[in-house]
Amino acid sequence: MADKLEKTAITPSTHTAPPAKFSHGVRKGNLLQVAGQVGFLPAVEGQAPTPAGPSLREQTLQTFANVKAILEEGGASWEDVMMMRVYLTDVDHFAEMNAIYNEYFADLKEAPSARTTVYVGLPAGLLIEIDALAVLG
Amino acid sequence: MADKLEKTAITPSTHTAPPAKFSHGVRKGNLLQVAGQVGFLPAVEGQAPTPAGPSLREQTLQTFANVKAILEEGGASWEDVMMMRVYLTDVDHFAEMNAIYNEYFADLKEAPSARTTVYVGLPAGLLIEIDALAVLG
Amino acid sequence: MADKLEKTAITPSTHTAPPAKFSHGVRKGNLLQVAGQVGFLPAVEGQAPTPAGPSLREQTLQTFANVKAILEEGGASWEDVMMMRVYLTDVDHFAEMNAIYNEYFADLKEAPSARTTVYVGLPAGLLIEIDALAVLG
Repeated sequence: MADKLEKTAITPSTHTAPPAKFSHGVRKGNLLQVAGQVGFLPAVEGQAPTPAGPSLREQTLQTFANVKAILEEGGASWEDVMMMRVYLTDVDHFAEMNAIYNEYFADLKEAPSARTTVYVGLPAGLLIEIDALAVLG
Repeated sequence: MADKLEKTAITPSTHTAPPAKFSHGVRKGNLLQVAGQVGFLPAVEGQAPTPAGPSLREQTLQTFANVKAILEEGGASWEDVMMMRVYLTDVDHFAEMNAIYNEYFADLKEAPSARTTVYVGLPAGLLIEIDALAVLG
Repeated sequence: MADKLEKTAITPSTHTAPPAKFSHGVRKGNLLQVAGQVGFLPAVEGQAPTPAGPSLREQTLQTFANVKAILEEGGASWEDVMMMRVYLTDVDHFAEMNAIYNEYFADLKEAPSARTTVYVGLPAGLLIEIDALAVLG
């Protein structure tokens, strides 16, 4: 701990600028924190952020892609993730989200991350939000 | 940080298999993350997970037991916990949860963890969910 | 990791005693976790905690002040924060909270922290709650 740890903002080229002064991801030492991601398609200049579609499946897969882009831009992968927080808007989406989750992570080589799922309010049209904490190394 | 850090899933024998590809707990380096726990009784093969009871007290104490089992399986204790997130479904449960919390942690020897309590939706019948981040060493 | 890490509770003099056995902040190693803060004014002995005002602006700025007091008491600053969790009660508050957020963090010198914003229930009269994880060094 003698050296000053560098703190780096992570902004994949696929991402819109954050709607406020926060970073999509930030790394310091061996910790990488991914901010809450939703199912927005890759940014198109001059266009408002657009969800991948109205369905839970479309939004969940796009949300995973958005988290992954930040992990990779920060030098990490799904294997490094310790914790994912999944925010859904409807308890009835739990089983379907789990099915998509299991498909998506079927090939994970290391221990799966821990996870908490709770049901909250999200902006209109959004069905899922996910953030992640990774430990590199 | 020269050595590759090992990432380990933590699955106490008392726990049901997670309902999706996540770990009840995961340890990497000196961090241990406990996934969101609810008041399910110890797993019985062939039976669906069953809450310890309908009351906040029963569910809170069982949730604590479930978090503790993961901490201990991962080589940690309550003393190592930095943060607990408490999810309740009803603002009117706050005072009773705090009373149970204070009883349970009365004998804590080190600084109590930080805590955030918010009110969210949970699956039918569940009144509380808790996750925890611990730093070992 | 040879030395035992010390775990320290952080309790700024401006803060009321926590309503249960948790710490407003806790530091262990180079991690500092700030518990969920709300817009309560500095504690006055013998008085119940009082929000800074009924408006989102008043409560948000007071919440920032309360988080900052804990960071500083623990030897950290906003520059060290990796993640902030913002809990609002109303989706319609998002734009205004972001405007206040941007003003407040306009002079941040390092990469802004990651952030997740979700909409939950909070005790009557409270419009915002924020917690924070910082990495020092």
